[in-house]
Amino acid sequence: MQDVATFPTKSAAPPASRAECAALDAADPLAAIRDEFVLPEGVVYFDGNSLGALPRRTMAGVTRMIEQEWGQGLIRSWNGVDWYPMPHTIGERVAPLIGAAAGQTVICDSVSVNLFKILISALRMRPGRTVLVSELDIFPTDLYIAEGVGRLVPGSGRRLIGQDGPDLESVLGPDTAAVLLSHVDYRTGRLHDMAAITEQVHRHGALMIWDLCHSVGAMPIELDACGVDFAVGCTYKYLNGGPGSPAFLYAASRHQDSIDQPLLGWSGHADPFALEPGYTPVPGVGRFLAGTPPMLSFAGLLAALEVFEGIDLHQVRAKSLALAELVIARGDELGLDLATPREAGRRGSHVTFRHEHGYQIVQALIERGIIGDFRAPDHMRFGLTPLYTGFCEVWDAMDAMAEILASQSWRDERFGRHGIVT
Amino acid sequence: MQDVATFPTKSAAPPASRAECAALDAADPLAAIRDEFVLPEGVVYFDGNSLGALPRRTMAGVTRMIEQEWGQGLIRSWNGVDWYPMPHTIGERVAPLIGAAAGQTVICDSVSVNLFKILISALRMRPGRTVLVSELDIFPTDLYIAEGVGRLVPGSGRRLIGQDGPDLESVLGPDTAAVLLSHVDYRTGRLHDMAAITEQVHRHGALMIWDLCHSVGAMPIELDACGVDFAVGCTYKYLNGGPGSPAFLYAASRHQDSIDQPLLGWSGHADPFALEPGYTPVPGVGRFLAGTPPMLSFAGLLAALEVFEGIDLHQVRAKSLALAELVIARGDELGLDLATPREAGRRGSHVTFRHEHGYQIVQALIERGIIGDFRAPDHMRFGLTPLYTGFCEVWDAMDAMAEILASQSWRDERFGRHGIVT
Repeated sequence: MQDVATFPTKSAAPPASRAECAALDAADPLAAIRDEFVLPEGVVYFDGNSLGALPRRTMAGVTRMIEQEWGQGLIRSWNGVDWYPMPHTIGERVAPLIGAAAGQTVICDSVSVNLFKILISALRMRPGRTVLVSELDIFPTDLYIAEGVGRLVPGSGRRLIGQDGPDLESVLGPDTAAVLLSHVDYRTGRLHDMAAITEQVHRHGALMIWDLCHSVGAMPIELDACGVDFAVGCTYKYLNGGPGSPAFLYAASRHQDSIDQPLLGWSGHADPFALEPGYTPVPGVGRFLAGTPPMLSFAGLLAALEVFEGIDLHQVRAKSLALAELVIARGDELGLDLATPREAGRRGSHVTFRHEHGYQIVQALIERGIIGDFRAPDHMRFGLTPLYTGFCEVWDAMDAMAEILASQSWRDERFGRHGIVT
Repeated sequence: MQDVATFPTKSAAPPASRAECAALDAADPLAAIRDEFVLPEGVVYFDGNSLGALPRRTMAGVTRMIEQEWGQGLIRSWNGVDWYPMPHTIGERVAPLIGAAAGQTVICDSVSVNLFKILISALRMRPGRTVLVSELDIFPTDLYIAEGVGRLVPGSGRRLIGQDGPDLESVLGPDTAAVLLSHVDYRTGRLHDMAAITEQVHRHGALMIWDLCHSVGAMPIELDACGVDFAVGCTYKYLNGGPGSPAFLYAASRHQDSIDQPLLGWSGHADPFALEPGYTPVPGVGRFLAGTPPMLSFAGLLAALEVFEGIDLHQVRAKSLALAELVIARGDELGLDLATPREAGRRGSHVTFRHEHGYQIVQALIERGIIGDFRAPDHMRFGLTPLYTGFCEVWDAMDAMAEILASQSWRDERFGRHGIVT
């Protein structure tokens, strides 16, 4: 039931040589899945936690939608090949990845827009409660959206936990309407205990909203079993839906009649083609839909989710943890400052080191085809995507890191002193 | 300066025979543009006002983004091939189609979501004014969004003009914050006088917001010259961006420092990668951006807009009006009830007839490969898309209409009594 409890909190010792890595790769039950992806020659990709790699079947899926469904079917495809229900039908492909029974998950808009809809709804579902709780370390767009909501709903306020701020229990109270936390921290990879926190928040009568951007597709998630109220997540990281592919939104069945979100668009209307001047929401999670969905991006997402058919997320999680143990062990040898929790049950699927010259070091790695990323102020992130990352790749990348640190080659001017690695 | 005044208010007599239609097609300066589109065998497409046909270059543009930019470039493409600026760079390709100088047009989200952002901003830009004015005949999502805004902003209200309701002048007053009208009516094709109405609204101190969904790409539009404040429009109708392709948003330069919209997402932040917990809007129209954009759909839109390079919108408009004159003349011969204004300067680019059995008649036409559409309660719409529709096609379609009406073949059970034609 608890997503955290189902994982080993301690893994076996990480491989101590390249030969041991090769043995692990050879025994990897997920090894064949790598063939589902296009991975450029000469690149070792540790940024699937930011933009997932291209699934081989994406091009065929998008081509079918463009050439057949749009080109030949034209307007008829909205009904004829079921474009209209796609926010729901693709949502149901995400549902098993987040532990959601049918009828609670839709694909629509962006994480930012979906959070806005949920936060306004949450405040309306808890009249008399005015406070939204979040955390300083959450991806900033979540805080910005909460800021926008706060300015729109008179009397509402915001409290932030984490870093040097207060802890969760101390800010929860009878005025708390909802709590919004990121399941996995986008910088450090810290994993929250979804079951325990959701229960804690419910004890105070507040609603629990999880941002799953940095966990979905990398581990089992059990929204229903944990009693979560709402969740959002993006589909272009571990789900490989393509750059900016539309977000998903989860609303627990028990709340769906109470949803009162302000982005009243025709896609959420009970009878969109009656074209009535007044708004009547469709029953169910569909009332979170607003405008017309971007179907080319939907086609890419649909193809990417087909890759997950038959994949055991517990296997994904086990490999993710083992890959991370290797990164951490080699990082320790190099004296790197680990920002990620050491305890396996408290980690997501990326490993982060802090280094004052992290930006330049990441650039030096990228020059060698080893693509991780940098997040301000000093975080070097290495995303581990079990569907296409192997142990030897990690071993070789950490060898490269060792060379770059030993030679201080990152000091070269061409790696800049400042800038953005996305 | 006035988009209406630049067009003939009366056109030459429509062609009176198929031979005359063939002569017009042969002399059509836009005829070659038809080759830019994929048009299925056996289909005559009169629904480009709902979903534009597939441009031939779309597949190549989307393939390049998927295979090269995403597949090979991976995360590097956000900077490397300028994915990040695409809301702006593609916006600047829409700008000449709407008469907008640079720096005022972005591509983002859906029309519904963009209207929400604009309406909240408009109320905040006119403190003390609480009323949003719109029209009963506008596409309903606009009314739904205004309804959602009304429930969110205490004390605000809504007044609707049109049909049997009051006229515009009678509802404008010192309490009017903004007016939202559809340039072209989605059912009847009625064209508003943008210049005159914008001036009228400004006389009352209110902001003017135009919904350009049903006009953009089918005629010249002069937002800057008309002094318009804000505009939105979709890109999947006459712009052929593909099903659900992202919307555009226009904000006049003079307002951009005052924009205060509540969907504060990281794409609208002054420095998105500083990852600061507090929101600081980017200067300019970019502060209307919220979440991460769906890039596959952006790629489709970019390719589609390339088709418009070098096209004279006055030629497009002239052909659109001439095609419509032919539909109207043949409809008159058949005794059809024209819902579209007869005066050329008061029409958009689709022609609509009212018929109590309109649904079945449209179905009977579709069975013959003639794709128009039906809008409740009784509107048969024929979209005229000058980039790929010819005079002979219109002639033949109206021949088919004549046969269907004369034989009453639409009464066949297979055409149903009720349903949706999108």
